[in-house]
Amino acid sequence: MSKYWSQVVHGLTPYTPGEQPKIANLIKLNTNENPYGPSPKVLEALRGEAADSLRLYPDPNSDRLKQAIAEFHGLTPAQVFVGNGSDEVLAHVFLALLKHDAPLLFPDITYSFYPVYCGLYDIDYQTVPLTQTFEINVDDYRVANGGIIFPNPNAPTGRVLALSEIRRLLDANTESVVVIDEAYIDFGGESAVTLVNAYPQLLVTHTLSKSRSLAGLRVGYAVGHPELIDALHRVKDSFNSYPIDRFASAGAVAAMEDVDYFEATRQRVMASREKLVEAMQALGFEVLPSGANFIFARHPHRDALGLTTALRERSIIVRHFKKPARIDQFMRITVGTDEECEALIAALKDILSAT
Amino acid sequence: MSKYWSQVVHGLTPYTPGEQPKIANLIKLNTNENPYGPSPKVLEALRGEAADSLRLYPDPNSDRLKQAIAEFHGLTPAQVFVGNGSDEVLAHVFLALLKHDAPLLFPDITYSFYPVYCGLYDIDYQTVPLTQTFEINVDDYRVANGGIIFPNPNAPTGRVLALSEIRRLLDANTESVVVIDEAYIDFGGESAVTLVNAYPQLLVTHTLSKSRSLAGLRVGYAVGHPELIDALHRVKDSFNSYPIDRFASAGAVAAMEDVDYFEATRQRVMASREKLVEAMQALGFEVLPSGANFIFARHPHRDALGLTTALRERSIIVRHFKKPARIDQFMRITVGTDEECEALIAALKDILSAT
Repeated sequence: MSKYWSQVVHGLTPYTPGEQPKIANLIKLNTNENPYGPSPKVLEALRGEAADSLRLYPDPNSDRLKQAIAEFHGLTPAQVFVGNGSDEVLAHVFLALLKHDAPLLFPDITYSFYPVYCGLYDIDYQTVPLTQTFEINVDDYRVANGGIIFPNPNAPTGRVLALSEIRRLLDANTESVVVIDEAYIDFGGESAVTLVNAYPQLLVTHTLSKSRSLAGLRVGYAVGHPELIDALHRVKDSFNSYPIDRFASAGAVAAMEDVDYFEATRQRVMASREKLVEAMQALGFEVLPSGANFIFARHPHRDALGLTTALRERSIIVRHFKKPARIDQFMRITVGTDEECEALIAALKDILSAT
Repeated sequence: MSKYWSQVVHGLTPYTPGEQPKIANLIKLNTNENPYGPSPKVLEALRGEAADSLRLYPDPNSDRLKQAIAEFHGLTPAQVFVGNGSDEVLAHVFLALLKHDAPLLFPDITYSFYPVYCGLYDIDYQTVPLTQTFEINVDDYRVANGGIIFPNPNAPTGRVLALSEIRRLLDANTESVVVIDEAYIDFGGESAVTLVNAYPQLLVTHTLSKSRSLAGLRVGYAVGHPELIDALHRVKDSFNSYPIDRFASAGAVAAMEDVDYFEATRQRVMASREKLVEAMQALGFEVLPSGANFIFARHPHRDALGLTTALRERSIIVRHFKKPARIDQFMRITVGTDEECEALIAALKDILSAT
């Protein structure tokens, strides 16, 4: 507390990201990073940027990157907004499109950054409970609102909502923006990007951190009607003219263009996930159906925090959420390489048999 | 205009950055970039980041970079905040520290992003006129305020305020934050960083875009009392956990550490500035005293917009501000290499003699 702080600072409860440990030789399954590095073509493009041209500002409009994203999705650049990670994109989305008199709606169990943005921008919100089976029921969103946002697949559950349900939601909700946060869509869900030409109120956000193995580069984007994109540009150009540095731009362009590598990597992660789910189930875990690069699992007789701690002692880190109470017996486990998954299973076997 | 936009978007007047032309062979003296590339040690560090480790998130706290900045200035890491360019740092500063009941004060002629931030965050502000000679008179800031901010050297004038004057301002203004935006300080001014241990209300912002030749990498920082830095972290962690990507971090660390290169480059730019000023004066221009890597100049008999246009026709771009009226006869010219400065002088000689 300080007399120098603006009023808003006193009330903030910042987001806590997953641990980024500085110890080597850990099996890191806690922040949903891709177990495989980026495409060799990305690395090559990045090396080319280490040059004298770094003295010059990057393109404030990131035209080349917008073009590459538009081409990947079969859209126009005017339908694309880019930012310094999808967290920055989402921050601008909250301020530009989701601050209205009626409350913003999102699930009670979801990405825990959403209420933080609401705190930052003084946005009224209301949470909508997931069903007993941790699913989103779109009929629960048929109430007056200033916007709707949820991830698909949802985080940290991993559950996918069918595109037909999203279409049903959009047909019913035309007066406010619907944001589908598709950070994990490439690992199993059907993308709503195919709907943006049909629904002017739909905005879809993506990140290059997961399926394109570039968490360290910080690039995310949103696609939607040019009128929605225009609002995001107005906010961005009132905040920071150049959020995308020269490396982020060059690497992201190469990543969007190397479709073969992207396809191969995501298939590999999905195959590992299926093996991991089977092995977890064989150990007695209940695993929610996952369309993401992580699974959400609980053991009927073993405390999740205890398991998380025991894994940590064996140099394996997974994520445990103390809140809300409905999920405090789950662990969220990133899908690693097959070797990492096997090490996890071996450790869990050991822990479960030990007591 | 759209029913989907939040109210704030309708009223925004975004900042317009200087042009980043996509045409080759221009002499680009319009956005105050350094004419020399970054240190070879920076380029080497950057090449090392093009690796599989990009699949992992960067350190959300940028500890290594804060350490390098703290060491350079003889401070502790708890006195350092880093961001994606000093524009992002300033955005967080406005929201975290400058939004109060009393109006924020800044000069009438200054960095034109300041009123834009006020628009974004609904901050009440009042401008304080520069003197007739375009100087800041600190006595003019002795009024009730919710904060004070100005660049030193000021932009776009280039004029330096003496450190003794800043100390006098701080002694008189203890109840609100004073931000000194030192984007250009390394080209001639005396830094207020030496005062942060003595004044808990002082925050000083820096960028690596100018004196460290890294406009393309997007790194800026603020130093001040840990209580002020804490407010910035709270806002940052409610906005984007990882604003500094792996390249930005590695390159910025190397740039802060290579003190010899930094010294040599800024001396070179200052020497070129002195030659440029003399040559401009010889052509009849009035040039304000500059402590920056740009000069602000007017010709007693020639229209500034006309000159800017004529230079552009000769493939030389400089910046002209139409507003406010007091400066509409000035051109802001970045100090380039000696060769670029000579080409500018030759072009101006040609233009002035032509009619």
